[in-house]
Amino acid sequence: MKNNTKRASILEALEQLIINGEGNQCSVSDIARKAGIGKSTTYYYFSSKEEIFDALIEQTYSDIIKQCESTVHIPSVSSVEKIKILFETYFSSKLVMPLDQYLHQPENAYIHQKSLAKILTSLTPILSGIIKQGIEDHTFFCEYPTESAELLLSEYCFLFDPGLFSWTSEELQRKYTFLAKAWELILGAPQNSFSFLIIK
Amino acid sequence: MKNNTKRASILEALEQLIINGEGNQCSVSDIARKAGIGKSTTYYYFSSKEEIFDALIEQTYSDIIKQCESTVHIPSVSSVEKIKILFETYFSSKLVMPLDQYLHQPENAYIHQKSLAKILTSLTPILSGIIKQGIEDHTFFCEYPTESAELLLSEYCFLFDPGLFSWTSEELQRKYTFLAKAWELILGAPQNSFSFLIIK
Repeated sequence: MKNNTKRASILEALEQLIINGEGNQCSVSDIARKAGIGKSTTYYYFSSKEEIFDALIEQTYSDIIKQCESTVHIPSVSSVEKIKILFETYFSSKLVMPLDQYLHQPENAYIHQKSLAKILTSLTPILSGIIKQGIEDHTFFCEYPTESAELLLSEYCFLFDPGLFSWTSEELQRKYTFLAKAWELILGAPQNSFSFLIIK
Repeated sequence: MKNNTKRASILEALEQLIINGEGNQCSVSDIARKAGIGKSTTYYYFSSKEEIFDALIEQTYSDIIKQCESTVHIPSVSSVEKIKILFETYFSSKLVMPLDQYLHQPENAYIHQKSLAKILTSLTPILSGIIKQGIEDHTFFCEYPTESAELLLSEYCFLFDPGLFSWTSEELQRKYTFLAKAWELILGAPQNSFSFLIIK
């Protein structure tokens, strides 16, 4: 097994254990056994189970961000449409449920926090790139594309995180309806450009 | 010593230890000794050092929020002026530096996360109350006072948290300049209403 394959197998083994509901009780030995790799070899790559989980989350989000990045490069698509595709891509490729639940456990709060910051700093240039396209073709009127992207993504990363807040479906619907309006105001976009954000 | 006095003494003892730079190494016994209370009595109130710290942060932010709440009830002050006072009150009464640094350590990430959520949910009704006053007297034109408050506070709680992001002073200045404009757009406020947000 090549080195990068071994590392990937360790991450995959932990992911599988979490999906099987064994995330809490499994040890580094269990992860090594599942990966078919010696325990000492596993410790060569990672010093603790927490470090493996950190790397797994890091890699999972990198994959999601890469998928999102590809949306900016679709030719002949309007800026509003690209924002729609960006959001659909992000939400459809989010963590699988058991991984997400494990990430939201109190003892993983630091890794969770880092992942939220990573999402914001990675999605900001992608979204602001789309906003700049919209400014150039006069769809948007906005002096601060980067800061606008950050403001709008802050809400997604923070207020809509189910580990931090529990909103009812009515509250969420109202928040999304407002957000469609807020995006319009912040980006100086034509009326109802962002009605796709509203939950039906 | 009365019961609530004992509890308060325990919190005060941990706060003092953190301020003295002994936050990391002190044990529940050290906290009890500093408070002049028996170790077993301390365990009657709290099951761990983490629980004491959690209660200390909870209480400190409750005090800060109470101070902020009083700003809504100042008579004959305009809504814009009240928002200014609210922000000045919040920023001047934030955690003392050593407590803030201790809160930002990785092992306290869960307590930190809870405190951010508490700030948002506590400041939202205060800020939206002020926004509603501004809507009534026709200073603001805004259909969603609660959701607007949440969007703007999300940025303060998340993007401006020094434990999550490290911005340069130039980046911060640009973010605040944008925010003054964003507040104006979201709240439908007269031009330059929020120029007090801009760092000089």
